[in-house]
Amino acid sequence: MFADRLVEAAKTYGPLCVGIDPHAGRVPALFGGDTGEGLTNWGEAIIALAAGRVAAIKPQVGLFERLGPDGMTALQHVCQTARKAGLLVLADAKRGDIGSTAEGYASAYLAAGAPFEADAVTVNPYMGLDTLEPFMRQAETHGKGVIVLARTSNPGSADFQARDLEGAPLYARVVEALGPLITRLKGASGWSGLMLVAGATGPDEARTLRKLAPDALFLVPGYGAQGAGAADAMAGFVQGPDGLMGGLVNASRSVTFPKAAETATRLADWQTAITEAITAAQTDLRAAQMETMK
Amino acid sequence: MFADRLVEAAKTYGPLCVGIDPHAGRVPALFGGDTGEGLTNWGEAIIALAAGRVAAIKPQVGLFERLGPDGMTALQHVCQTARKAGLLVLADAKRGDIGSTAEGYASAYLAAGAPFEADAVTVNPYMGLDTLEPFMRQAETHGKGVIVLARTSNPGSADFQARDLEGAPLYARVVEALGPLITRLKGASGWSGLMLVAGATGPDEARTLRKLAPDALFLVPGYGAQGAGAADAMAGFVQGPDGLMGGLVNASRSVTFPKAAETATRLADWQTAITEAITAAQTDLRAAQMETMK
Repeated sequence: MFADRLVEAAKTYGPLCVGIDPHAGRVPALFGGDTGEGLTNWGEAIIALAAGRVAAIKPQVGLFERLGPDGMTALQHVCQTARKAGLLVLADAKRGDIGSTAEGYASAYLAAGAPFEADAVTVNPYMGLDTLEPFMRQAETHGKGVIVLARTSNPGSADFQARDLEGAPLYARVVEALGPLITRLKGASGWSGLMLVAGATGPDEARTLRKLAPDALFLVPGYGAQGAGAADAMAGFVQGPDGLMGGLVNASRSVTFPKAAETATRLADWQTAITEAITAAQTDLRAAQMETMK
Repeated sequence: MFADRLVEAAKTYGPLCVGIDPHAGRVPALFGGDTGEGLTNWGEAIIALAAGRVAAIKPQVGLFERLGPDGMTALQHVCQTARKAGLLVLADAKRGDIGSTAEGYASAYLAAGAPFEADAVTVNPYMGLDTLEPFMRQAETHGKGVIVLARTSNPGSADFQARDLEGAPLYARVVEALGPLITRLKGASGWSGLMLVAGATGPDEARTLRKLAPDALFLVPGYGAQGAGAADAMAGFVQGPDGLMGGLVNASRSVTFPKAAETATRLADWQTAITEAITAAQTDLRAAQMETMK
């Protein structure tokens, strides 16, 4: 089961997930710059440093898609290379559509041998539970995960997600409706591979979500460059036999574009900068875990 | 402006939009079957019959994406060929993400010279208004449209969209919040290129949406194979100087996979079947327009 693999990896390496976000114009010339080939080389170079150090990577599909079919080829390489290297791959696609089209997306990201095969994919719940079902079926068949947007990390999450839907915030109603799906993807660890996106910029909401869904693993964006600290990022984690546990905390820009990496002209200097940034994020998260355990 | 081009095309050809939905296993062997090349050939063959007959096509991105980079190359060919043939292209991608990633998607679908350049793209509002802004900026700069999911045509639209958010259905709150965006994309015709997805299976909701957003063009899915008739599909249209107007009505399976096309072994027979299906849908919609005008 995906949930058990994630929990095992998080026990070994900590909760850090490295976001692979090739922002326009920011992939170093060292790797070929802003082309499909550049994105492949850059992504694979990060994977080489992340493998054996962190639990997972999260490629941001939109930043590959902007380069068209070449960008999608780079995404394919990144997913394949990362999985071969033993990293969990969370494809951040935020897809969502009705029946047959949702099946298309699910078979693109979750099926065995899928073109962009990942261990889990992010999906948008706005269109309703029937639109999540094709992802659920692929996840059940192939031991994968489904990551549902609940409370995102951007200011606009206040526009609809945080507003009152029949007595509770919309995001809480979404999580409430996901109950049976959470049960379906529960592993031997007790955790479910029906993950929830719970933005690090909303620690109170994360604690609410944890109460509503005690077994769902969280994917926490917004840590690092988006402004949230480690303690806030793990606000929805809980103390268990193996320490503070509850999902993965994603860092993208702070880990893959640290200043020292952007100014690096030699591969070795870039590698050092990335490795140091990964280690710094892990240390920061670990310190917050220790602080919370006191 | 996109809105004016759409209104002009709808006046000339009627409200039919042809959905290009390459469902798994249904692209005829005649064109190469379920491969990137097959999807390109099939899509371009439909475009050749749709050009000069209908206003627009709507490729369903998920059904291209399922074939990976090859499928996305087919999508690229379909978008380019259709625009060259004078058809409006509505890319049905249902994307949605925060700032920089939304910029990635917007530049993939709406920028001038974008890899999958379309005239408009469908987006999901769940993450909030700030996530729509990158699409709005590309639309304003390049005279394109943005199509926001409001009330979709699937049963699951009842799960969240139809529920009460602070005194009105969520989908109505979404449309309410879109007011300033609708104004920003308004053309000389008085109609706005900030379109709303208003499922044909919910005619009452379409009438509600029309009251809330009198100027927004609608994209109406669910007509034909999904079960809704022509009158229901145009429930949100209004009587004006040029007849009943209000957006586009999409038909996919009923027009691109009619029985006679699925059994065709010769290209000419397939072409006849598709042309007849397009004409039948147009006649059906036209009759409902006339009925409503009485």
